[in-house]
Amino acid sequence: MGMETFFNPTSVAVIGASRDAKKVGHVVFRNFIESGFRGRVYPINPKADEVFEKRAYASVRDVPSHVDLAVICVPQPAVASVLEECGMKGVRHAVLITSGFREIGNDEAEHTIAKIAKRHSMRIIGPNCLGVYDPYTGVDTFFLPRHRLGRPKAGNIAFVSQSGAVASVMLDWMESKGYRASKFISYGNAVDVNENDLIEYLARDAKTKVICMYLEGAHDGRKLMEVARKCRKPIIVLKGGITSDGTRAVASHTGSLAGSAEVYSAAFRQSGIVQAMDIVQIFDYARTLVACPTPRGKRVQVITNGGGFGILTVDEIVKNGLEMAVPSKETVKTIRKSVPPHVVIKNPIDLAGDATAETYQAAIDAVIKDKNNDMVVLITLMQVPNLSDEIVNIVQEAFRASKKPIVIVSAGGNYTEVLKRTLDENGVPTFSYPDRAVAALRALWEYSNKK
Amino acid sequence: MGMETFFNPTSVAVIGASRDAKKVGHVVFRNFIESGFRGRVYPINPKADEVFEKRAYASVRDVPSHVDLAVICVPQPAVASVLEECGMKGVRHAVLITSGFREIGNDEAEHTIAKIAKRHSMRIIGPNCLGVYDPYTGVDTFFLPRHRLGRPKAGNIAFVSQSGAVASVMLDWMESKGYRASKFISYGNAVDVNENDLIEYLARDAKTKVICMYLEGAHDGRKLMEVARKCRKPIIVLKGGITSDGTRAVASHTGSLAGSAEVYSAAFRQSGIVQAMDIVQIFDYARTLVACPTPRGKRVQVITNGGGFGILTVDEIVKNGLEMAVPSKETVKTIRKSVPPHVVIKNPIDLAGDATAETYQAAIDAVIKDKNNDMVVLITLMQVPNLSDEIVNIVQEAFRASKKPIVIVSAGGNYTEVLKRTLDENGVPTFSYPDRAVAALRALWEYSNKK
Repeated sequence: MGMETFFNPTSVAVIGASRDAKKVGHVVFRNFIESGFRGRVYPINPKADEVFEKRAYASVRDVPSHVDLAVICVPQPAVASVLEECGMKGVRHAVLITSGFREIGNDEAEHTIAKIAKRHSMRIIGPNCLGVYDPYTGVDTFFLPRHRLGRPKAGNIAFVSQSGAVASVMLDWMESKGYRASKFISYGNAVDVNENDLIEYLARDAKTKVICMYLEGAHDGRKLMEVARKCRKPIIVLKGGITSDGTRAVASHTGSLAGSAEVYSAAFRQSGIVQAMDIVQIFDYARTLVACPTPRGKRVQVITNGGGFGILTVDEIVKNGLEMAVPSKETVKTIRKSVPPHVVIKNPIDLAGDATAETYQAAIDAVIKDKNNDMVVLITLMQVPNLSDEIVNIVQEAFRASKKPIVIVSAGGNYTEVLKRTLDENGVPTFSYPDRAVAALRALWEYSNKK
Repeated sequence: MGMETFFNPTSVAVIGASRDAKKVGHVVFRNFIESGFRGRVYPINPKADEVFEKRAYASVRDVPSHVDLAVICVPQPAVASVLEECGMKGVRHAVLITSGFREIGNDEAEHTIAKIAKRHSMRIIGPNCLGVYDPYTGVDTFFLPRHRLGRPKAGNIAFVSQSGAVASVMLDWMESKGYRASKFISYGNAVDVNENDLIEYLARDAKTKVICMYLEGAHDGRKLMEVARKCRKPIIVLKGGITSDGTRAVASHTGSLAGSAEVYSAAFRQSGIVQAMDIVQIFDYARTLVACPTPRGKRVQVITNGGGFGILTVDEIVKNGLEMAVPSKETVKTIRKSVPPHVVIKNPIDLAGDATAETYQAAIDAVIKDKNNDMVVLITLMQVPNLSDEIVNIVQEAFRASKKPIVIVSAGGNYTEVLKRTLDENGVPTFSYPDRAVAALRALWEYSNKK
């Protein structure tokens, strides 16, 4: 059975849909109503006549038409019988939100689920998970209220997480930053669908250009390496449980075997997986790898309007094993014509505190043309008085026109964040600090060399 | 001459105060008007009768009463004569914003300034700087408009920066996060007042409890070690220019000698200075060191409502050389009474996705009393449906009552940020990610051992 139905069903039954706003089944059902989902949604609840003004059914078997996807939110003891009913109804895809299985040592209950699924040829995501969010179709089984947990707009970054908490935080965080997602999947205990199935599916998904993953323990390491090697899209993984204590904590969480950090890192390298070292880096790398062209070399030119930020960037370029570009004589000459005499045209090019949109334009144009560099870190501190917000258009235009990777560094408070969000929503990768921007360029360079 | 007048003058002349909103002198003058500064402010401008409805004077010498502090924003060629006039008027403190001195090789002009200052016994901050921001008195020479650059509320973190860009970004960023500041000083080329004078002053300043610094090159390394050793408050330094290319970039910036990274790190260690490795870490450390009591050991207990976040925290505790606490039998027994059976009471204590303010309360109370731990990482993912915002009060209360350090990890979008900001404004250190929180605890532990 294919996976597509999880993301694009025509009819969904929410089993355990509740009128009580505190219940998971309430939030899930409400999400389908509020997300713009275009298929049919049926509340299944033996104790209610209707939920959100939709007629409720006592069992999924009572639904008068076919059901593609069941979202199961009932208490753990009821799961097996509900799943059995789904099987009899001919439902072939289920997202099983309910927890209380292998993660608390209840292996038998999980085994029962697996048997029912097999007998009815059902595919299951879960249990002990948040399930699926697809901004294109409106499928949204994340049981967290929309005012607490933002949902990102449709884009091309997929995120697959063994941990529901990590998935939900990153979903929320992406929305607040203006980053765009193709699909989010929290797959929990993976009684059936695991990370390998998801990578294989996402590798073929036209909406997805980069696959991000939070992984505690691989279900089949050899298979993971195989699917990763075959995948033509970047895969970025944060591995949880890389220390011995962390490994023990993983055992109490999803019940996976976390394995040794070194073994994982080596396997990732061998199969072309990019390893992120913290949560934010997953998306730093994803945004950069998805948006930037392949660099021809590792010489980085820095343009700044703040000397200190330029210096911190240089430190990071060297620490990350990249090289400092040297601007050509032509570049120096061209920029010199358009900037005040105190501007230092080396690397960094320091346009200083009185930088304007026009001096930036001159510097960016010359640097993009210069054959002496391969990548550009563009620092734009938006606080300075003479820099109009036209800089946002200039940066976007330059990013589009450039055949070289350009990343933006811009830090500060609300005014700055508003401008950065505009850039990110338009696919230009922005960073708050030099260390993050340069690490992303290094990941891009390394990935380009692996391909 | 003392330094107090820079921060708390009774009368200020803004020399170069302009009616043109794009001019530095305009923004500086406007800041004094809008900041609630209670002293007198005089605009000095030979080409205007009044600025912001205040009578303007052609020269500082025309001001009818005494002037404590001059803020000089005139073009570089006019600086020497303006400073001379200040001297003759009896002004003993000047903030010299103007650039175009040693940082662009104009050593002679800077030497002239130094001579004038010496002859008149004047203290000077600058040139090539943003000067002073004091949220207590309203002194604000940062020439960046308030809608672009936020100003933090009054608190106890001082920040001293050789780079104006780094200072302004951090000022803006602190405000947006709800962090509070005692004094901000961007001192630029340091023709007179340098980082050592500022540390000595801030060490005695009653408002300041922690001194943060962005340093490119020390003006007198021996003296820096001496003042740092004498200082009874934590000093946290980010050193810019720690690579050879970075060092060269420093030379084009403030003209300082950046020196070798290893020499600096060793000197910092020997004199009790805490070294931050990136910009954000400066404030991660400052907020933690200023707010938390001294830990008795390095055993860390983790409380979470998201398994994945717990695991990532465990990894960081081990990587940072801290230890995993083991909850006492008493603690396990006490918490067990108040939480559902699926809650795992080990380390981490995982309250799971259905955590409530009440289960948190039970876990926190028991952990604070437990003698088997020395520090606490409290992960509160605010997105989950059953966690009421009462959690903010519970955390604040626990933080106040606890004799152990507690740091909060909470990540996500707007809903989460609003709650975090409340905690930070009340002095409870919050972090977005486990790596940052645990690094701050390690810094606290190391600093406690040095003292």
